Amino acid sequence: MTLNLRGIIPPMITPLTEDCKLDYKGLKNLIEHLISGGVHGIFILGTNGEGPSLSLEVRKELITKSCEYINKRVPILVGITDTSFEGSVEIAAHSKASGADAVVIAPPYYFPISDAEMDEYLNTLIPKLTLPFLLYNMPSCTKMNLSLETVKKGKELGALGVKDSSGNLEYLFSLIDTFKDSPEFSVIAGSEGYLPATIKHGGDGAVAGGANVFPKLFVALYNASVAKDTFKIAALHRQVTQLDETIYSVGTTPSRVTKGIKCALAVKGICDDHMAMPLHRFNQPEREKVKGHIENFEKEFMAES
Amino acid sequence: MTLNLRGIIPPMITPLTEDCKLDYKGLKNLIEHLISGGVHGIFILGTNGEGPSLSLEVRKELITKSCEYINKRVPILVGITDTSFEGSVEIAAHSKASGADAVVIAPPYYFPISDAEMDEYLNTLIPKLTLPFLLYNMPSCTKMNLSLETVKKGKELGALGVKDSSGNLEYLFSLIDTFKDSPEFSVIAGSEGYLPATIKHGGDGAVAGGANVFPKLFVALYNASVAKDTFKIAALHRQVTQLDETIYSVGTTPSRVTKGIKCALAVKGICDDHMAMPLHRFNQPEREKVKGHIENFEKEFMAES
Amino acid sequence: MTLNLRGIIPPMITPLTEDCKLDYKGLKNLIEHLISGGVHGIFILGTNGEGPSLSLEVRKELITKSCEYINKRVPILVGITDTSFEGSVEIAAHSKASGADAVVIAPPYYFPISDAEMDEYLNTLIPKLTLPFLLYNMPSCTKMNLSLETVKKGKELGALGVKDSSGNLEYLFSLIDTFKDSPEFSVIAGSEGYLPATIKHGGDGAVAGGANVFPKLFVALYNASVAKDTFKIAALHRQVTQLDETIYSVGTTPSRVTKGIKCALAVKGICDDHMAMPLHRFNQPEREKVKGHIENFEKEFMAES
Amino acid sequence: MTLNLRGIIPPMITPLTEDCKLDYKGLKNLIEHLISGGVHGIFILGTNGEGPSLSLEVRKELITKSCEYINKRVPILVGITDTSFEGSVEIAAHSKASGADAVVIAPPYYFPISDAEMDEYLNTLIPKLTLPFLLYNMPSCTKMNLSLETVKKGKELGALGVKDSSGNLEYLFSLIDTFKDSPEFSVIAGSEGYLPATIKHGGDGAVAGGANVFPKLFVALYNASVAKDTFKIAALHRQVTQLDETIYSVGTTPSRVTKGIKCALAVKGICDDHMAMPLHRFNQPEREKVKGHIENFEKEFMAES
Repeated sequence: MTLNLRGIIPPMITPLTEDCKLDYKGLKNLIEHLISGGVHGIFILGTNGEGPSLSLEVRKELITKSCEYINKRVPILVGITDTSFEGSVEIAAHSKASGADAVVIAPPYYFPISDAEMDEYLNTLIPKLTLPFLLYNMPSCTKMNLSLETVKKGKELGALGVKDSSGNLEYLFSLIDTFKDSPEFSVIAGSEGYLPATIKHGGDGAVAGGANVFPKLFVALYNASVAKDTFKIAALHRQVTQLDETIYSVGTTPSRVTKGIKCALAVKGICDDHMAMPLHRFNQPEREKVKGHIENFEKEFMAES
Repeated sequence: MTLNLRGIIPPMITPLTEDCKLDYKGLKNLIEHLISGGVHGIFILGTNGEGPSLSLEVRKELITKSCEYINKRVPILVGITDTSFEGSVEIAAHSKASGADAVVIAPPYYFPISDAEMDEYLNTLIPKLTLPFLLYNMPSCTKMNLSLETVKKGKELGALGVKDSSGNLEYLFSLIDTFKDSPEFSVIAGSEGYLPATIKHGGDGAVAGGANVFPKLFVALYNASVAKDTFKIAALHRQVTQLDETIYSVGTTPSRVTKGIKCALAVKGICDDHMAMPLHRFNQPEREKVKGHIENFEKEFMAES
Repeated sequence: MTLNLRGIIPPMITPLTEDCKLDYKGLKNLIEHLISGGVHGIFILGTNGEGPSLSLEVRKELITKSCEYINKRVPILVGITDTSFEGSVEIAAHSKASGADAVVIAPPYYFPISDAEMDEYLNTLIPKLTLPFLLYNMPSCTKMNLSLETVKKGKELGALGVKDSSGNLEYLFSLIDTFKDSPEFSVIAGSEGYLPATIKHGGDGAVAGGANVFPKLFVALYNASVAKDTFKIAALHRQVTQLDETIYSVGTTPSRVTKGIKCALAVKGICDDHMAMPLHRFNQPEREKVKGHIENFEKEFMAES
Repeated sequence: MTLNLRGIIPPMITPLTEDCKLDYKGLKNLIEHLISGGVHGIFILGTNGEGPSLSLEVRKELITKSCEYINKRVPILVGITDTSFEGSVEIAAHSKASGADAVVIAPPYYFPISDAEMDEYLNTLIPKLTLPFLLYNMPSCTKMNLSLETVKKGKELGALGVKDSSGNLEYLFSLIDTFKDSPEFSVIAGSEGYLPATIKHGGDGAVAGGANVFPKLFVALYNASVAKDTFKIAALHRQVTQLDETIYSVGTTPSRVTKGIKCALAVKGICDDHMAMPLHRFNQPEREKVKGHIENFEKEFMAES
């Protein structure tokens, strides 16, 4: 049995209490919200999940509880990267033990490293994994863009696919082109706005942050893209684009997208929006803006959806 | 009488012959194509116009001929920036003499300079201008992002508006917010995908490179945005987004957007696509891709337009 | 009793065995080498110490053992920064319990954060510390340059000083100028080549990576700088500059300086040069080059020293 | 007869009057100062020469006058790069006609370009040159680092050498290593602090901005480096390093080095320090600092020189 990764796989935010513990109730709500929205998988402990900000304990607990709550209804992917190699291996082992389906590898993110060092890292880490794995390209946080050669290397070592959050459409297309003769290897967009282009060009899906809030919208856009339904794509893609222009444009910090997503979930009553240091949830004025954007968005689009 | 800059103002590409002279016939065709497409103004000698690559003689000739061919049907804006101050002043004087409507100022682009040096540059240059002027923010080429303070300074010195090609939606929104009480000051998006967001947020229009090829599409999107026609915006914006995913994604050089636009105009028979050093037009394989994209685009969308 | 941080404080490399455990014998040797070389303090778990690559267990063990071996002969400073807030607090508590003298705070390094987020981080972290603390500016790894305002904020909150590894002499001088009326606040260069300039300009010392290998050289240069002995400064600074031109220029990866230092210690027989993933020690060809540079260096300069 | 480029080749600043005309008297003084200081060549219209800020007329006049005043006593190299290809060709032709010895080619600097575009640029430009030529790597201003492949390509097309101002010692060493079997091809450091390392590693000299002010110091350091006189190198290199720590650290703009050099020449009475827009000479407070640094420098070191 192999995982066939495609479709909408939200990079799940991590519901937290004010003192940075796991919020079980919020987590349960969020998972039901996602699954009832039709998502094709769930990716935990990525950037939107604030993985690197969480202690090893909280990360392990999130894995255990997510696997329990999801209960095999959709595949669960776990981001394992830690600046310590031992930390990554430990999270990977815990993912296997908890029943997760795959792990996700990004470059360790303190030292700037060379391509050869990244390849060597994969060579050493992968034999220690007991689950299928994907690569994760996230240069704005890791200071490293995975080279095409590194992704090829990862595939040789068994990778199921790659998620690209570079924001560079050229690079994403070159990934799709490079692996077009390997349909079992998934190329997944990390930039949600690129979903229709990804599918049209031959890619497999999107790890769409906005699908935390609006899973149905993204699933519908994925389905329309697969069906090549130009009219529907246009209407739905415009909604996705408008998230950029509204919720994701509140605040001025580099992590405003994650903050906006968490805040929108709080506004919708799905979970609270506490964040782990060094990030902080929006204050009241930003929250009011997000609330206004959500209301406008629902007023403007729900008739059509 | 004042210029009221708004709507779609294409950054006109410069039709050139193989030996880098002005292509009069292509220029005439292109101008008629733009004006019959309903554009609200024409901006020459910007980045898409390859201004900095053209000799002073060719730049002057382009100004003269463009003014003659346009013949007051729409406002004409001229990019004057040169690394030599005297060069900028000379182009500005020639613009006035030729009957242009406004000039456009970007930072001189060899030395990295400070905000204070840019302010001093404006202080010295502006008194030497005899036409209205706009500021032009183009950090990927000039190595400088105009600060809000510099734009305010420009406005105090008489600027009619600012064109922002930073690609940073936050910054664009902050410009609109800063000048919201000055309706006579135009804030114009240099990133064509931001047109609906710009209008919705209170901005004035777009200097849209793609409007060289598809002026009607951009004018229709501008009109739909002003009319707040959600359905139409969605359908038309999706078309604009698809340019990014097709024509602008051919080739891998940083200037592939300009090359794609010029190539598309050649494919459509409007003008040839020769470029000034250091850029070069697409070769046959890229040209075939652009041709395919244009055909698909027209097949897919023209029914709807 | 207050710590008066000044002079040469090597950012100690972490001696490791092949399987990434602590190398006790190497650690003991290295500490004796440093203390007999006259250093004024020892900074562990910084960038050269590969702090972020080590598991929490190894980090704690290093703290315990270093405190034991140093045994109060010189102050010991511990880098505590972890991407998880709880991890930083845990290392800080362990440092206090082990008898360390101060802790060192850098920005958490996964998410790009704003100045305001960094200030809030300090506000929350510092009350949880039970030891004196310094700030550590290391933008090439943390993606954040500490602003002057943030350093002032840190000082208000009790910081003993700041170590600047930006490599930007302007910024270092501006730190010295800002705090010149607070002699108890130490401004320490993280770029060893700036040692004479730092002292001349009114700063306090250097966290010099090269002092792992040549502690006497750096201590002598510090003393000559304090004594304003122009001839001696010239002779000794040239030696320091030559490290850049030799040992630090072997290899091409961004972390070649740390690799060169560790390799040089292995060549000199002080400790082995194993590194924690994702870094790797030099292979034989690079090691031969380092060996040659060390021999030339000792031949060329030792007569003079 | 071939040029054998080696030694100290100052990137001559351009003496200007307040209204940005050529200052003949200052130019004559400066040339005599350089030649009597023993320099091995003079490079005009580089970055320190503010080449891109000068009108075509002033650039041509500077070439004519410099050739006349230098009168074949040392080789004269002329920077020709202009964003317009025709401009570069015109300056090259004028250099030949005026009796210059070589021209210097940098990438045109408005559009970010690919390596292939740079190679094509060289392919097209070089056949139009009638003088020997060098390549000039200046990424901080041109946004492009010349690849080793491009430099090899330039050599195949006839380049006499390359001047590297990247500030990257690794890259400079790799250039020296690449061309070590072609002694007729000169590798020249654009970073003056790298002069001893360049010579020791097998390179040929330095285009040292500070040699505008202190030509004898740099010539002496070059001679000591060639003679491998460790003591002398140490004493003289420390003086060079101190320029970084003093004159070049006055002011905070990116072009403070050029401003400091021009100001130092004014303080020494050699020429005035007017600059072409967008740069400006130092104001009185900065000028006082430069004056103080010059006095300290001469007091501290002249006894030894």
